[in-house]
Amino acid sequence: MVSEKMYELGTKKSTIRTIFEFGRKRAAEVGEENIFDFSLGNPNVPTPEFVKNAAIEILQTFEPSAVHGYTVAPGNPKVRETLAESVNNRFGTNFTGKNFFITAGAAAAITISFKALAENGDEFITFAPYFPEYKCFVESVGAELKVVPAQPKDWQINFEEFEKIISPKTKAVIINSPNNPSGAVYSEETIKKLADILTDKSKKFGHEIFIISDEPYREIAYNIEVPYVPKFYKNTLVCYSYSKSFSLPGERIGYIIVPNEICDFEKIFGAVAGAARVLTHVNAPSLWQLVIAKCAGKSSDISIYEQNAKLLYNGLIDAGFECVKPQGAFYLFPKALEEDDYAFCERAKKFDLLLVPGADFGAPGYFRAAYCIKTETIEKSLPLFKKLAEEYQK
Amino acid sequence: MVSEKMYELGTKKSTIRTIFEFGRKRAAEVGEENIFDFSLGNPNVPTPEFVKNAAIEILQTFEPSAVHGYTVAPGNPKVRETLAESVNNRFGTNFTGKNFFITAGAAAAITISFKALAENGDEFITFAPYFPEYKCFVESVGAELKVVPAQPKDWQINFEEFEKIISPKTKAVIINSPNNPSGAVYSEETIKKLADILTDKSKKFGHEIFIISDEPYREIAYNIEVPYVPKFYKNTLVCYSYSKSFSLPGERIGYIIVPNEICDFEKIFGAVAGAARVLTHVNAPSLWQLVIAKCAGKSSDISIYEQNAKLLYNGLIDAGFECVKPQGAFYLFPKALEEDDYAFCERAKKFDLLLVPGADFGAPGYFRAAYCIKTETIEKSLPLFKKLAEEYQK
Repeated sequence: MVSEKMYELGTKKSTIRTIFEFGRKRAAEVGEENIFDFSLGNPNVPTPEFVKNAAIEILQTFEPSAVHGYTVAPGNPKVRETLAESVNNRFGTNFTGKNFFITAGAAAAITISFKALAENGDEFITFAPYFPEYKCFVESVGAELKVVPAQPKDWQINFEEFEKIISPKTKAVIINSPNNPSGAVYSEETIKKLADILTDKSKKFGHEIFIISDEPYREIAYNIEVPYVPKFYKNTLVCYSYSKSFSLPGERIGYIIVPNEICDFEKIFGAVAGAARVLTHVNAPSLWQLVIAKCAGKSSDISIYEQNAKLLYNGLIDAGFECVKPQGAFYLFPKALEEDDYAFCERAKKFDLLLVPGADFGAPGYFRAAYCIKTETIEKSLPLFKKLAEEYQK
Repeated sequence: MVSEKMYELGTKKSTIRTIFEFGRKRAAEVGEENIFDFSLGNPNVPTPEFVKNAAIEILQTFEPSAVHGYTVAPGNPKVRETLAESVNNRFGTNFTGKNFFITAGAAAAITISFKALAENGDEFITFAPYFPEYKCFVESVGAELKVVPAQPKDWQINFEEFEKIISPKTKAVIINSPNNPSGAVYSEETIKKLADILTDKSKKFGHEIFIISDEPYREIAYNIEVPYVPKFYKNTLVCYSYSKSFSLPGERIGYIIVPNEICDFEKIFGAVAGAARVLTHVNAPSLWQLVIAKCAGKSSDISIYEQNAKLLYNGLIDAGFECVKPQGAFYLFPKALEEDDYAFCERAKKFDLLLVPGADFGAPGYFRAAYCIKTETIEKSLPLFKKLAEEYQK
């Protein structure tokens, strides 16, 4: 009667969702202030005033049809020009508006990219730990997702394992840096090595292999440069979102960049347009197109994330956890105190510490703690992490 | 290298697009005021003040995270409750918020519905004249679109032809009333007859057949009631958009209703959620969710469309055209003055009258004239329609 696959995708509760619901239930029992919910990656820096003011000014001063009318499929041409200038100023690139396809956030951007590129039998590769939705997005376009095992010492790319998995079937690799859930930023060295391997394998296999650079966390990096991938590898699609940088996750606004230098710009931008069309993602929300242009080059104040990162990292190290130092995004990804990360997260629940098992991200034995929450919640949680750790020392 | 299908869908120019571009070129040559562009279905009633004021008030008074934060996948629960109440007040239905899945407009709503329902080998049926994007949306979910030939005397459903096409493979029928491009409103008699046939065939074929009621033009009807389909057929998905009713086409906001009475609510709503997930259409733009709730039950002033409809209809009849009287939407669909509607539209171009051939909508021999344009443009065009008609009398 319906697509069983869609039914399953629409009803099977994710681990995060289950944890979140448990948290809501407990909060009703013991009070919000006694629940330490590290499960959700929801930005807690408020939307900046300049974004709000831009939206109000546009609504008050523009002709309604100029704000709310249809734009062409890839988005308002002037907005795209402005975004191109802003990216060029920042990264020394040479984009024009024609390289931009505005989308409803990064999830739409990556899915459009998958759909544009995927041919029968294609494989896409990503690197653990990874955003679990990649799997259903890739499968929904008829391709297969291959996951390269993690490199826990620094959460950079495990190239040895990567070389085992890359094959003539590989259409693209998906990278996500700053990374959800590890909090790592791929170094220039990592990106260069990845680019070298892909150049080599593209030649060897006789077809281009693309990088899809999923960058919703680009602006959240702590005193470290996040390499701009198209500068290192020409066959790159950049997928960006304003969900985190402007704290606008509900508004669904971002973009895809298809660089001129890509192997066949006309073909690939055309396929992106076709994919956006059948996924009914043409013409991203028009008010927000204007707002991101008006606010181009600005960013939210992310100092709170950095402060939280330090606080939680130091607290966990102090309690005896092993954890790679956070470089960006708003997640820590420490080692669980027992092999079974599900069992560990269950045990943490007894202290009302809500954590997500690393196996959900393809890295069993670890757990994710999202620190985009109140600083005082983190402060109050630290003695509980200590108690939790002590339980394992008994 | 890319999906050839996506490339083709993204680059093949539609007839409407080609006409529109011709119009822009001519406007640059002879002046905007000398071009009579009836090609685009872009609402020209400005977004109502109450919509603008609602958006500004929400931005100024709500907590940013309450406006711009993630909502649950089907949309803000309070918003969905408000929409349900509003629909219930109007149509005497018994919906709750749980029946609503908020979407990025009607295009997303229908595509999600297709994806939720489609199984291998399924056919979807629609009735000419029809919105041409149905074809690529249906095909993109792996199903086939079957088109029932038109009934030009009144543009109601051609049931005789319908009974020849409906088959055990039929998963759903797509209706669009008020209709783009015919301007017809399906009568209660039409809907009842359709419901009777579907009930009968569902029994005969041993599986349910759904109606997908695509209703972006619901509010644009002239002194005629547009039957509320779920009241006549329980297995109906309503796909609604605020693009026309609030003149917000660029903002992408609408909804799907899955009624409780549908054959298996839990299964179908679940599949809708799964389809929205893989099409990356969860959490429709959040500010606009709040705005449509705040403005629930209100509507734009559509009197200008009715005025334009009369003016153009009378002018065309006066010039000797044959045309069914418009009942809604903002289109006329008159008979072309020669059999080949493409040739006719080419000839009209000489008078700078930009019209869309009916064959594009599955009804050759007719043409579409969108009258959502300035009234004075229509006034100035009437002598040209007369001259065009006179050419055929020579």
